[in-house]
Amino acid sequence: MPGGRRAGPTRTRQAIVDVARAQFAARGYDAVSLRAIAREAGVDPALVHHFFAAKAQLFAAAMELPLEPDAFVSALLAGDADTLGERLVRAVVELWDTPGAFEGFLGLIRGAVTHSDAARLLREFLTRELLGRLAAAAAPDAAQARAALAGSQIVGLAMARKIVGIEPLASADPAWLAAAVGPTVQRYLTAPLPG
Amino acid sequence: MPGGRRAGPTRTRQAIVDVARAQFAARGYDAVSLRAIAREAGVDPALVHHFFAAKAQLFAAAMELPLEPDAFVSALLAGDADTLGERLVRAVVELWDTPGAFEGFLGLIRGAVTHSDAARLLREFLTRELLGRLAAAAAPDAAQARAALAGSQIVGLAMARKIVGIEPLASADPAWLAAAVGPTVQRYLTAPLPG
Repeated sequence: MPGGRRAGPTRTRQAIVDVARAQFAARGYDAVSLRAIAREAGVDPALVHHFFAAKAQLFAAAMELPLEPDAFVSALLAGDADTLGERLVRAVVELWDTPGAFEGFLGLIRGAVTHSDAARLLREFLTRELLGRLAAAAAPDAAQARAALAGSQIVGLAMARKIVGIEPLASADPAWLAAAVGPTVQRYLTAPLPG
Repeated sequence: MPGGRRAGPTRTRQAIVDVARAQFAARGYDAVSLRAIAREAGVDPALVHHFFAAKAQLFAAAMELPLEPDAFVSALLAGDADTLGERLVRAVVELWDTPGAFEGFLGLIRGAVTHSDAARLLREFLTRELLGRLAAAAAPDAAQARAALAGSQIVGLAMARKIVGIEPLASADPAWLAAAVGPTVQRYLTAPLPG
């Protein structure tokens, strides 16, 4: 009813997501906390945790990414480390190809190419939640360099397949792409790097 | 003098570049010819050739790329085919790092991310003038796939180092990048690909 003390859960969740989107845009990924988002949204931190178990989930909701980052990374790490590169490439390609799913990633990439704040946001999220965790688990030395190298190939593949539309990458089967590009990511994640 | 019959050579050259920029933007790379540019600029085709020996040179001038595409590719192909990937990565990184030089590439990438016409332009130029020629010379089978794969890593490296600023790639020495990323490009250009 108008003037009621409490918003419904859907509106509360949306208010949290809106605050999160603004804070991520202004401050990047690392500097934002669920606690600060709760404070600005005027809700208890426990309520934020009720809707979003981790910052990465709230980020995915704010950026409309069709991705549960924790589950995505956990599934990849549960498999054989020798096939991590191939499984990672196949998983991201299948994610991008899900109908309607690439829009959120495209927004992140467009932002990164046009605004340095958005570039920082993409860089911090990719490093902390996806590639950094995979790299550290696969080969703990030089995890940041491994994550960055793997990220460069993944972002480049997204550009080639989904944005610039370079054939045969644009229409290639995900399994072919995994076989062609997976060894690159595997090498970056687990092979010796130059000193 | 006002009303004189002929523009000076500097203004004529600039008029050709302006016409070329508009035609590339509207029609992509492959569909544009030096002859069509001469016609629209109202000059003799021989005059266009006088200023620009090849379409790639005119494209570089129109897009403000600090690059002589023919000379760049020829120098790479003159070296040992087994080190092509490493030499290519080092050459593009040193080109990007030249003061003021990345702006033209950034414009191409920004365009590609925001407009499909600009994406086609980048795709056609990269494929025809740079990567496609390198790939066809290095391993003539599947040259288009090889060029596309190498291009995905090169564009991703540009994103990581110059746009998103992912460390340690953003501040890495060109020689280290060549050692880390060169084998990827080498594999794409010359190793067997999945069927």
